[in-house]
Amino acid sequence: MGAMDEHQYEMKLEGALNLGCMKTGMEIEPEIQAAVRILLQGLGEDVDREGIKKTPLRVAKALRDGTKGYKQNVQEIVEGALFPEAGLENNRVGQAGGVGGLVIVRDLNLYSYCESCLLPFQVKCHVGYVPSGQQVVGLSKLSRVADVFAKRLQNPQRLADEICSSLQLSIRPTGVAVVLECLHIDFQSGGWEKLMVSSGSGVFQDQKDVNNNNIWTEFFSLLKIQSSVSGNTQKRINSISHWCPSEASETSTIPPSGMISAVTSMLRALGEDPLRKELVGTPTRFLSWLMNFQICSIEKKLNAFAGNMLEPNMKANGEVKCNMKAYSELNLPLWSMCEHHLLPFYGVVHIGYFSAEEINPTRKSILQEVVHFYGSKLQVQERLTKEIAETVAPFLGGDVIVVAEASHTCMLSRGVEKFGSSTATVAVLGRFSTDSEARALFLGSLP
Amino acid sequence: MGAMDEHQYEMKLEGALNLGCMKTGMEIEPEIQAAVRILLQGLGEDVDREGIKKTPLRVAKALRDGTKGYKQNVQEIVEGALFPEAGLENNRVGQAGGVGGLVIVRDLNLYSYCESCLLPFQVKCHVGYVPSGQQVVGLSKLSRVADVFAKRLQNPQRLADEICSSLQLSIRPTGVAVVLECLHIDFQSGGWEKLMVSSGSGVFQDQKDVNNNNIWTEFFSLLKIQSSVSGNTQKRINSISHWCPSEASETSTIPPSGMISAVTSMLRALGEDPLRKELVGTPTRFLSWLMNFQICSIEKKLNAFAGNMLEPNMKANGEVKCNMKAYSELNLPLWSMCEHHLLPFYGVVHIGYFSAEEINPTRKSILQEVVHFYGSKLQVQERLTKEIAETVAPFLGGDVIVVAEASHTCMLSRGVEKFGSSTATVAVLGRFSTDSEARALFLGSLP
Repeated sequence: MGAMDEHQYEMKLEGALNLGCMKTGMEIEPEIQAAVRILLQGLGEDVDREGIKKTPLRVAKALRDGTKGYKQNVQEIVEGALFPEAGLENNRVGQAGGVGGLVIVRDLNLYSYCESCLLPFQVKCHVGYVPSGQQVVGLSKLSRVADVFAKRLQNPQRLADEICSSLQLSIRPTGVAVVLECLHIDFQSGGWEKLMVSSGSGVFQDQKDVNNNNIWTEFFSLLKIQSSVSGNTQKRINSISHWCPSEASETSTIPPSGMISAVTSMLRALGEDPLRKELVGTPTRFLSWLMNFQICSIEKKLNAFAGNMLEPNMKANGEVKCNMKAYSELNLPLWSMCEHHLLPFYGVVHIGYFSAEEINPTRKSILQEVVHFYGSKLQVQERLTKEIAETVAPFLGGDVIVVAEASHTCMLSRGVEKFGSSTATVAVLGRFSTDSEARALFLGSLP
Repeated sequence: MGAMDEHQYEMKLEGALNLGCMKTGMEIEPEIQAAVRILLQGLGEDVDREGIKKTPLRVAKALRDGTKGYKQNVQEIVEGALFPEAGLENNRVGQAGGVGGLVIVRDLNLYSYCESCLLPFQVKCHVGYVPSGQQVVGLSKLSRVADVFAKRLQNPQRLADEICSSLQLSIRPTGVAVVLECLHIDFQSGGWEKLMVSSGSGVFQDQKDVNNNNIWTEFFSLLKIQSSVSGNTQKRINSISHWCPSEASETSTIPPSGMISAVTSMLRALGEDPLRKELVGTPTRFLSWLMNFQICSIEKKLNAFAGNMLEPNMKANGEVKCNMKAYSELNLPLWSMCEHHLLPFYGVVHIGYFSAEEINPTRKSILQEVVHFYGSKLQVQERLTKEIAETVAPFLGGDVIVVAEASHTCMLSRGVEKFGSSTATVAVLGRFSTDSEARALFLGSLP
């Protein structure tokens, strides 16, 4: 009955709205929309700008969808999907079917919201249980129950524990095991924080030392994870409250109190208690990330490399075209923020150009600076690509191709949930816009 | 506004139902539920059996969700998500941003229903367009529009054409390109039918010969598909109506007319015209697949290898335990049908056993027969694993471990859409149920 529960939930949310209201969208989570407008203003944005004027509505809907687990009921999801299933015939020694036959559902792609910084994090979820009482549960319910708890503000260990204990309570099997492989964007370092956590009940809990617990070893064998189980155990103890990169990085600047109040009101609108100890620092941490994208910080960065930037590539411009060769700078890391959903997107930028000789290391580092510079504001990938191309063209000789390849967090969170999808955008200037052979050569060289 | 459109659709469907009706579920697509009951009876099943008594409701909901695209409107999805985006600055030669800057969204996982046989097929969808008129569309809308047409009864080429032309109409760009990589279960051969199709409009259509069209070459470069583009073109001409494996295989037996009428009424309930030429043979093709799982056919197959089956492994039973060695048969192909949703699941079965010597090739082929045999009826994976273990145990010496690993179509279609997830089930008999070292050895040897 899981699907119907979701329909009921949506009806409850939307049911009171007539079509007119839906068109303006003002009635959807008005506190969150008001808070997002304050945040946009705090970034120095014009909240009536076409690209972002509906961002408050989009963020409100994304957060509502991303936290709908608060209003879902596990018991109702599971109780319609428990099926009688016999164990082994009487005269046999062993475990199978509805009595003791281990069941594992692997590689469920979920996402959740980090309670520390409000950014979504990815979860590869593996759930196992040992049936008892001659009954099994419909396989999709393991996924649905996991999603109920993923769609809340979470940290990995609590997420694993909540999935585990709710399945134990609702199915009442001999034991439940949950392993989560979590990936959190580390915006400061431009990398990822990875964490594997586990949670067990019943036979998976009886032996506290995971290293010597055979059923855990078997579970990991079937997950095909060559896991250092001891490493896993250690994580359980130490990393619960410190896995979010924003907790490690101390910020010197204190965000405006109006913005802090705005984020606090968002937490309250989602049904959370902003005074819960894990959430007390969340508004500050969220804002210390968000403020990387404020308009004023961009101009500051621009000045830092403007001197080098504005000096054109004289040598290249002075040569005749036949001496020009194609060069490329590939895989320049890209991090930016989608202005439609206030969610990060990340990937790489590739730049191709014609020149008499390859640019020197100083100019190469400037290319990375330019990518970083245009990533550091609210963006759409199409505009970002165009801006990089226009900025680097003068000092690369004018003939430039820029390809950005990025994964968008907004394509995996919200209703879309297109895990594994990515976006490529292209900008071509000068010779690259007319010479299809040059374009093909460059595109064929991409990693 | 895509998410709201879906809510409206769900409200329209469910809105008239009060909570009491929802509990019984009888009001959801009653024609489909009635048809599914006829099909279950035709398979020789007891429609009141606990495991399948709600199958008509589940199938009705799965089909309704899987064909909701008939009631969705592309224009409404796109029109709220067109954003102004400048092209290059005036004095520059080239293409970028909202004028000419190619945008590609890659690797969107979708599924659709084959209009030829009603089985779901997987689609990896790649969409590109060349913006014009200083506007771009929100990236997620490319995915949402593709899904509108995927959620209908389809064949790959029409799916690609409909996605392409609707994006062309609603965004009005310089051109749209769609490439679909489709995978259809080939139940007869135990493999997959793969097909790549493409569709182009505007600049992607101007040059009809795909081989010499540079913009197509660039598009494929960015998809990182080393495609034989000519092969692709050929497919476009020849394979549209013959890609579904059920069209190639002629069946000698004609299914009961009551079952044919039942499938026809399902098509009508989905809003399709059963007389549309692509659908005329669909009920027969669907049933020729379905009838592989009828109860009576199982007993027939049982007799074919009962003689060999029932002869126990005397040699193994006569030896003392210390001479026994562990052997395994890995990767026995498995195809079966989920009794909860009437959707296929497929994968491999691994069998481990203790014996004085490895079983001979005849007995090995019997193991595959047993797997095939228990796959050939409505199943749940837990029971299938148990039944295989119980059947092979006597003639493998009694100490047996069976692991089934399978992907369930019901986990990717319907609301779940957990692409890439898989399920492992385990049954252990005799020594394997007590000897954790033996279990670990076997599980560690799995591919």
